[in-house]
Amino acid sequence: MTKGTLYGVGLGPGDPDLITRKAARLIETAKVVAYPALAGGDSLARSIAADLIPSTAREIVMSVPMSRDRAPAQTAYDLGALAIRAELEAGRDVVCLCEGDPFFYGSFMYVHARLKADFRTEVVPGVTSLTACAARAEMPLAARNERVTILPGPLPDDELTARIEGAESLAILKVGRHLPRIRAVLDRLGLTAQAVYVERATTPDESVLPLADAPEAAPYFSMILLTKGADPWL
Amino acid sequence: MTKGTLYGVGLGPGDPDLITRKAARLIETAKVVAYPALAGGDSLARSIAADLIPSTAREIVMSVPMSRDRAPAQTAYDLGALAIRAELEAGRDVVCLCEGDPFFYGSFMYVHARLKADFRTEVVPGVTSLTACAARAEMPLAARNERVTILPGPLPDDELTARIEGAESLAILKVGRHLPRIRAVLDRLGLTAQAVYVERATTPDESVLPLADAPEAAPYFSMILLTKGADPWL
Repeated sequence: MTKGTLYGVGLGPGDPDLITRKAARLIETAKVVAYPALAGGDSLARSIAADLIPSTAREIVMSVPMSRDRAPAQTAYDLGALAIRAELEAGRDVVCLCEGDPFFYGSFMYVHARLKADFRTEVVPGVTSLTACAARAEMPLAARNERVTILPGPLPDDELTARIEGAESLAILKVGRHLPRIRAVLDRLGLTAQAVYVERATTPDESVLPLADAPEAAPYFSMILLTKGADPWL
Repeated sequence: MTKGTLYGVGLGPGDPDLITRKAARLIETAKVVAYPALAGGDSLARSIAADLIPSTAREIVMSVPMSRDRAPAQTAYDLGALAIRAELEAGRDVVCLCEGDPFFYGSFMYVHARLKADFRTEVVPGVTSLTACAARAEMPLAARNERVTILPGPLPDDELTARIEGAESLAILKVGRHLPRIRAVLDRLGLTAQAVYVERATTPDESVLPLADAPEAAPYFSMILLTKGADPWL
């Protein structure tokens, strides 16, 4: 029997309209879909693709606990990969849904690492939160020979400081509960006035604000953009 | 009269199937489209969107010379912006087509800078070459708290060297004629064996190779990926 193919499908930043045509077609015709969900909670990936998932599709939920300890999440992906493996062995394709892009801080890479040796895989790239936030803030990220630096917000202060000082165009992702700390770092560097805060870009709950006006409590899906060098006049 | 809206629409890396549903709808219903073309040559943007552009749409071509001198390109965008302005003033929306993402090394930012003060604008983000190359190479770009560094290939050797040494996950864009020089830099840093070369990702002419096997002559749309730190096992 021919084994199934594992598709890792990027869904974009949140607006279902920013799903690509390829991703939409794969989801609409899927027999099996798989996606991560917060343990005991909703799946953002499923909610973005909801209007496309056939009612007849089998759904494999990977229930991932939000924990700094890696073991529980590893177990969730181990179990998910086992369930997906069974479908692929039975000859059924599996469409694995992923917010944003599968390989840009995406959960699909954990599934991919566990199954790529044994099955045909295809990764369908998606619109990242990076360019979605820039689009919504109407801030060009980079032109010509400008460098772009992407920093996860949980990095420690000294590393953030060193990397921000060397940056030209800068995005700080996964801001969340680190917002007050990151803002203090940018304050010390005299960069707060140029920074823009974007929360839940392209969703109905979107917020785009000068960083100085950002709320104290930021969600995980938030970003700070700082383009020090962009010269869009060419 | 109500003025028209200027849309900057990302088309993704080359495969028309990687156009988002929103971009597709805007193009399919456009009365006026605008796009850059190489002076005297084709427009990659137009070719990606070709099957969506209505035969009745007016097309504004910005003929941009490939030159390190900025003045001729500035003139091309000045003239393009004037033609677009006339349509917007007459109350017609203009859909400006852009390879990849409009604000990630995209040409739309030059049009945006010239018109944003006077008209309603909306940027529709697209799939970037960055994640498209990672998808096609099946190389995760970044997980968890890994940093991503994006460097344009034309940067001088000393700057490339310094930025590459400090990088964790690395993409070098716009490789083109700089390939031999960039390869020499990576050789000196002992990184060539880990590097992957991707040319024209997601198009029929795509090529994905170990950097050591890359051709001497690379096109502008080529990229080197190096993920030193990614640990997709979680």
